[in-house]
Amino acid sequence: MPSFTVFKGSNDGSIHKSSTTRPDLKDDQVFLRVTSSGLCGTDLHYRHADMVLGHEGCGVVESVGPTVKHLRAGDRVGWGYQHDSCGRCDQCLKGMETYCAERAMYGYADLDQGSFASHAVWREAFLFKIPDGISDVDAAPLMCGGATVFGALAIYGVQPTDTVGVIGVGGLGHLAIQFAAKMGCDVVVFSGTNSKKEEAMKLGATHFYATRGAKEIKSEKKIDHLLVTTSAQPDWSLYFPVLAPNATIYPLSVADGDFKVPYMPLISNGLRIQGSVVAPRGIHKKMLEFAARHDIKPIVMRYPMTVEGIEEAMKTLDEGGMRYRGVLVSEQQS
Amino acid sequence: MPSFTVFKGSNDGSIHKSSTTRPDLKDDQVFLRVTSSGLCGTDLHYRHADMVLGHEGCGVVESVGPTVKHLRAGDRVGWGYQHDSCGRCDQCLKGMETYCAERAMYGYADLDQGSFASHAVWREAFLFKIPDGISDVDAAPLMCGGATVFGALAIYGVQPTDTVGVIGVGGLGHLAIQFAAKMGCDVVVFSGTNSKKEEAMKLGATHFYATRGAKEIKSEKKIDHLLVTTSAQPDWSLYFPVLAPNATIYPLSVADGDFKVPYMPLISNGLRIQGSVVAPRGIHKKMLEFAARHDIKPIVMRYPMTVEGIEEAMKTLDEGGMRYRGVLVSEQQS
Repeated sequence: MPSFTVFKGSNDGSIHKSSTTRPDLKDDQVFLRVTSSGLCGTDLHYRHADMVLGHEGCGVVESVGPTVKHLRAGDRVGWGYQHDSCGRCDQCLKGMETYCAERAMYGYADLDQGSFASHAVWREAFLFKIPDGISDVDAAPLMCGGATVFGALAIYGVQPTDTVGVIGVGGLGHLAIQFAAKMGCDVVVFSGTNSKKEEAMKLGATHFYATRGAKEIKSEKKIDHLLVTTSAQPDWSLYFPVLAPNATIYPLSVADGDFKVPYMPLISNGLRIQGSVVAPRGIHKKMLEFAARHDIKPIVMRYPMTVEGIEEAMKTLDEGGMRYRGVLVSEQQS
Repeated sequence: MPSFTVFKGSNDGSIHKSSTTRPDLKDDQVFLRVTSSGLCGTDLHYRHADMVLGHEGCGVVESVGPTVKHLRAGDRVGWGYQHDSCGRCDQCLKGMETYCAERAMYGYADLDQGSFASHAVWREAFLFKIPDGISDVDAAPLMCGGATVFGALAIYGVQPTDTVGVIGVGGLGHLAIQFAAKMGCDVVVFSGTNSKKEEAMKLGATHFYATRGAKEIKSEKKIDHLLVTTSAQPDWSLYFPVLAPNATIYPLSVADGDFKVPYMPLISNGLRIQGSVVAPRGIHKKMLEFAARHDIKPIVMRYPMTVEGIEEAMKTLDEGGMRYRGVLVSEQQS
């Protein structure tokens, strides 16, 4: 039986290279060669699990299962957090399969597959063709990071005339700035210090505020939609005064504990808090078209798709040194 | 100068009757005789303030100012929390003047006017004609309580095919059940004990759960929109499992401190928390038409519009004994 390489987490958080048997393809399964994979904060969470890591994948189709209809060998494809869905529940039927109760997603299903690997098997239905204008390395971070921020911007009614606030310039934030700017929005960026100011402005921000130690934000511009991309929860006493009435807050990162905001301002200003994960497929496809049309690209740091490469990238991300998304690149690709 | 009677709060929370000079009417001001007023939880908050109390008013127009266009003596009108708005800000211009920054509302403006009074002066622009099918006593609780729950149901996309949860059967809750049921929704009611079950079912609930001491809610039905009408914050570990993915939570009562929900379920289920106050005028008008058309009425306990009547009603409300809205009725009316 032919086999391929995967990189797995482990109890102590170290990364292990192992070999997986390549199964016969059934139904709409696609066998692909991984060319690149983004590294996301969630991967840090799962490095302690006995599972194949990586969920911002990009690769090339090698062969296809018996019912595959649209993909063929040689096609460039990407995939993300969502692996499958039931297709029958309310969420699936309204195109929000990312909330399907079957939770066929990263960390819950197909633990023997991932994008930290030489190859992978995925359902055609959950693979996305990569537009010609986007390279494999640039496509990878769009699969989760890009899809997460684009989903928030595209699903919940952000208008081109709105002011979008982005807290945090990192893997998600630096893509959110670009998407919101190209949607025509006024983009206000909040970051700890001014170190990322120049880059944020180049990406499309119109205003930038350094918030570390700040007692107040002196912004004339009121925020209609605030994307929180930092894992630390914001100090709301700083941000509430710069929210427009009826503003929406999108907490987008993974965190423990409670989400906590001052009660009365929430009510009296008619604020909305909108939980949101990655984009469902319909929106994910639009995201790729939009990124290609507007030349939206992640800023990446490359690492080899090896145990050492993965561990180094994880270390950099964990220490806050990533500018702005780590991408693991297969040897053939690099 | 002619004068009229008003009832004010005071430092120690006792209610004081006093006399106010009737001003000359200017612009679109309307002078009206108060026939009835609902008693709302907010009035309990303001009983310690030196201001005229009451903001669920109903009355009859006695005379009109020079620029009044649509109202005339004898018209039955109601009014609520909102007294005025700037007319120029984004919120006013999109018909959400309840979030106008001028905050010309109960407790903030016109502290010399209120619905605990024999008469009052209000702007025509913020008065609502009462439909023929609704009595003065029944209209009063709609002005804030009704407008608050109807606003949540009417503004934020509740569909007739949705399941609406209502936590608390009180002044707001018993109206929310009726509105949601007549909107065609499946209505699930949560109350401490079964004591209000029969009444809730009569009002249009399809399911009822007593929650005091419950470890879980065994509901097949998942809630799409959850209206929280209790001032105590719910135990979310009880309610989160019965929320549908992408459900919306509407905290509608006044409370101190923080609003706090578990972080990860908020994100991974794509939940929404929607702050909301009373309905703006466009929605308030629809609420009155809807209530008249569907014969939606509050269940009230009547009290005389006197110091003793107000204090007794406040005591009953404060002790949780109100079934379900207290209405102060003027002597002429009672």
